Amino acid sequence: MHVTEAKAEHWPQIFPFFAAIVAEGETYSYPDGLSSDAARALWMPGPPSRTVVAIDGDQVLGSALTGPNRPGRGSHVATASFMVDPAVRGRGVGRALGVHVLDRARDAGYRGIQFNAVVETNTRAVALWQSLGFEIVGTVPGAFRSASHGFVGLHVMYLDLTTDERSTT
Amino acid sequence: MHVTEAKAEHWPQIFPFFAAIVAEGETYSYPDGLSSDAARALWMPGPPSRTVVAIDGDQVLGSALTGPNRPGRGSHVATASFMVDPAVRGRGVGRALGVHVLDRARDAGYRGIQFNAVVETNTRAVALWQSLGFEIVGTVPGAFRSASHGFVGLHVMYLDLTTDERSTT
Repeated sequence: MHVTEAKAEHWPQIFPFFAAIVAEGETYSYPDGLSSDAARALWMPGPPSRTVVAIDGDQVLGSALTGPNRPGRGSHVATASFMVDPAVRGRGVGRALGVHVLDRARDAGYRGIQFNAVVETNTRAVALWQSLGFEIVGTVPGAFRSASHGFVGLHVMYLDLTTDERSTT
Repeated sequence: MHVTEAKAEHWPQIFPFFAAIVAEGETYSYPDGLSSDAARALWMPGPPSRTVVAIDGDQVLGSALTGPNRPGRGSHVATASFMVDPAVRGRGVGRALGVHVLDRARDAGYRGIQFNAVVETNTRAVALWQSLGFEIVGTVPGAFRSASHGFVGLHVMYLDLTTDERSTT
C-alpha cells in the first residue's frame, strides 16, 4: 500500500465508499444522496486543496482531502478529511493516510492541523488522531445527528506542528 | 434602528465596511482584497443562509449572515457572522444583530448556534456573545494571524437553544 496524489481515474473507485460512508450516517455531515459529480466537486476541489489515495496495486483503499482550513489570516493551519473503504477497515489505511497528510503539512510549512468535526462516537478515529498527537480542543454538544446514537458531540481536534517532531510510521 | 432582511440594494453600503473590517486584519480570515462581487457572493449567498442588515433610516449600520453550520447531519446547528460599520461601533448594533439572529434561530427550530472562529483578542465580541449566553467550547491556539497581535487563538463558541430561555433585548 502506498499513498499518492488522486487522479480523475481514481474517482470511480472512491465514490462507492464515499457514498456508503455518508449513507451510514455516523461520521460525515455531507448532504444525503449526492450525485457522483456533486461528491467529486466536494472531495476533489483542486488547489489549494489536495486529494490523495491509498492504493494497493490498482485498488483504491481510502482517500484523504487536505488543504488550508481557512483562507487569508487562517491559511497557516491545515485541515483534512479521511475516508477508508469499509471493506478494508482495520488494516491501517487511515493511519497511513494520516501520517502522509501530517508529513506533507509539515513540509508545506503549516503551523498546525485542525479537524473541525470529529464525531465523538467515532472512537476509532478519535483514538487514531490522538495516537498521532492530536488533542481534543473542545466538543460541541449534540452537533451531529448520528444514525445510531442520535445527537452526539463533534470534537474540534488540533495538532501543533510548530513544536512536535516528525511522526514515525 | 431595526434589523431586517438584506436586499441587493443594501450591498453598496455593506461592502465598504466589509472591506474595511477584512483589511483591519483583526477579526476575519476572508481573503484580502476581495472584489465587491466576490465579497457579495460570500456574504449574501442566499438560501439556506440568510443575510440581514441593521438599519437606521436609509443607513446600513451593520449586517449578519446566518444559516446552518453544516449540511446533512449537522444542519440542526446554526452559525452566524457579524459585521458592524467601524464608524458606529459601541452603539449596540452588534447586540441588536445578535439578538435578532438568536431569536430567528430559535424560531427556525435550530438546536444551537455555533461560532467557528471568534478571534480571542476580539474581546468586545467575545464579551458580547458571552452576555448572550454563548460559552467558549475551546480555543485553537494560534489559528489566526492578527495584524497587530500576531498568532492568536480562535474560539469555538456555542449556545444551546434546547435549554435556554428567550433572550431579552
